[in-house]
Amino acid sequence: MTEIPTLDPPRRVLMGPGPSGADTSVLAAMGLPLVGHLDPEFIRIMDECQEMMRQVYRTGNEVTLATPGTGTSGMEAAVMNLLQPGERAIIGICGYFGERISQMASRTGAEVTIVTAPWGSPVPPEAIERELRAGPTKLVAIVHAETSTGVLQPVETISALCKEHGALLLLDCVTSLGGIPVEIDAWGVDAAYSGTQKCLSAPPGASPLTLSPAAWSAIQAREAPSNSWYLDLGLLEAYWDSRRAYHHTSPISMTYALHRALALVLEEGLEARWQRHENNGRALQNGLEAMGLVLHADVEHRLPVLTTVRIPEGIDDGTVRGALLNRFGIEVGGGIGELRGNVWRVGLMGESSTAGNVLLFLSSLGRLLREHGFEADVGAALDVAAQGLAS
Amino acid sequence: MTEIPTLDPPRRVLMGPGPSGADTSVLAAMGLPLVGHLDPEFIRIMDECQEMMRQVYRTGNEVTLATPGTGTSGMEAAVMNLLQPGERAIIGICGYFGERISQMASRTGAEVTIVTAPWGSPVPPEAIERELRAGPTKLVAIVHAETSTGVLQPVETISALCKEHGALLLLDCVTSLGGIPVEIDAWGVDAAYSGTQKCLSAPPGASPLTLSPAAWSAIQAREAPSNSWYLDLGLLEAYWDSRRAYHHTSPISMTYALHRALALVLEEGLEARWQRHENNGRALQNGLEAMGLVLHADVEHRLPVLTTVRIPEGIDDGTVRGALLNRFGIEVGGGIGELRGNVWRVGLMGESSTAGNVLLFLSSLGRLLREHGFEADVGAALDVAAQGLAS
Repeated sequence: MTEIPTLDPPRRVLMGPGPSGADTSVLAAMGLPLVGHLDPEFIRIMDECQEMMRQVYRTGNEVTLATPGTGTSGMEAAVMNLLQPGERAIIGICGYFGERISQMASRTGAEVTIVTAPWGSPVPPEAIERELRAGPTKLVAIVHAETSTGVLQPVETISALCKEHGALLLLDCVTSLGGIPVEIDAWGVDAAYSGTQKCLSAPPGASPLTLSPAAWSAIQAREAPSNSWYLDLGLLEAYWDSRRAYHHTSPISMTYALHRALALVLEEGLEARWQRHENNGRALQNGLEAMGLVLHADVEHRLPVLTTVRIPEGIDDGTVRGALLNRFGIEVGGGIGELRGNVWRVGLMGESSTAGNVLLFLSSLGRLLREHGFEADVGAALDVAAQGLAS
Repeated sequence: MTEIPTLDPPRRVLMGPGPSGADTSVLAAMGLPLVGHLDPEFIRIMDECQEMMRQVYRTGNEVTLATPGTGTSGMEAAVMNLLQPGERAIIGICGYFGERISQMASRTGAEVTIVTAPWGSPVPPEAIERELRAGPTKLVAIVHAETSTGVLQPVETISALCKEHGALLLLDCVTSLGGIPVEIDAWGVDAAYSGTQKCLSAPPGASPLTLSPAAWSAIQAREAPSNSWYLDLGLLEAYWDSRRAYHHTSPISMTYALHRALALVLEEGLEARWQRHENNGRALQNGLEAMGLVLHADVEHRLPVLTTVRIPEGIDDGTVRGALLNRFGIEVGGGIGELRGNVWRVGLMGESSTAGNVLLFLSSLGRLLREHGFEADVGAALDVAAQGLAS
């Protein structure tokens, strides 16, 4: 490096699998002056974050905190603390993030049983039930909103099965929280984590996590400490609860952003926010089909916040995504895992879920597809989409 | 909560053990628009961060990255990846953070040998040597700047001993990097990690980490994966190197802050920055002694960036720290571990290391001590300090 580099990131319309766009007030919150991580005023900000996280998760769980890392840190905290060597875990896998949970679970020394479904469908409760009957199980883990496939996993039947068989239920809410209904207490979920950069629309860097009393008791009853010290939930809780025992230096600016983002969610209202995501997501999906494209996820389990659309034959993945980015400033995601090269992943999360973004994306994609020989019906797409957009 | 809370953190003079104050341009960087974590423009920003981290660490190490968490995440990444079950580690402990390393090392299943020194002195090389002679050792870990005691640990003799005995050397640079000389290559350090919120003066939330080719080979030669998936250095490196394999969603805004903070360090120049910290730190220490107070750390091993000063008899720790915060807006740290209630920890790190802060602190502390019956010689303190301040 001959010169000291300057910093000037481009302006993007963030319609990939995350990060989503953040409200200017959330970005501005990160620029507020730093305070100490044990400053009484910062403790108050943490307490307010905690209470807002409970509201967004729809839970009264005492143990509710944000792990100091991205959504994957929440996944690791949950898995590493809930599982001990030799304990049995059933992991539902119908996409990339279920696989990730199983990889983490394997590192705990637990006995990992996987239950799979095609990438595009949810995990069937009957398959989970079969494995629950096969032997005593500590934990069942499923992904609520599979970011790799755009599939919504129904939770309530599996939760009832877990209760029946004495297993704890872990729910990955990375892409669902703040965008679609999440009801931790009503559904009987024992542990959940999320990310900030999806439907909560803050920058990545913290993971809201909540534990039921049963999950917390299980962690406190561990015979040996968890594999992780950084993400040891006993140590993290001792900092978040009234003991305020030093464990790590809280990511101060990230906590400011989380605070402001959670406040925005509550200001909009959870039901209104879910409806906005629903309307815009369905408008996008109807528009894509009207354009002549095929959606990948099962029609009855499509997420409104993340849509997987199949790349038409003869169209080059990288060329189109590159042109979306470079000519229109729009980021969408490519496929990952089994779906690499087969689908685009289009996010409409948080601040990015707007009527304007739906129309902008449909018109930009349609134009590019036409340039590359696919006869996209852009007029029909925009017309159909416009009818369903969130007002 | 009846109302949705607003966010208005107070303005503080941050003179504790971290976070230090951040330059306004670093805070402003966090407010820049978000981009995707695989956006070519973001990849460029990561590459620039990597090259600047190499310069600040004075290393040519290919494997140089920032772990997605606070300084403790860097500690955990280093310890969990470098140690395998049954391998022997020698951990030098002369304060809280050495203890923390040994706790993490114990969770890897390694055979942990500790070498201790009084809290106020560095670990003597002879004690490390004795243990190196006692049996084959994979890793020696020491803390360069013990934030709990204010002690500087000399590195070069211990590094030479490690080479002689075929052990890797891990150096905790959380409080040293950017404030006092750190010479990874010249000293022959194999692995090092730091924090952003100390002498680099960015918010907490990322941990610059570097590995020598020998350390990287050792990690690649592991028989089983590390305990941690989130902080698996093989997976992290696959994202930071040209493979750009998805692992986690990079903390985008934090990376912006790191970029700007590293640029500020290089703009100032490392030698000039070290000198500034040296001058201000010595001025503070001379001033405190002139006031009639006793410094805790051995005189020949005092850090300029973090000073431990003994609380005089009859003075209440919490009362004085509370008044510093509430009346003067100054945060300093209390003692931790063995030194709880016995010392104050006064940081002069990064942007917080200014002549004004030295004088403000001496005058504020002196005034409070007098109010509580300790005859502080404030005039002498300010006079002595003023002679040594960084211009």
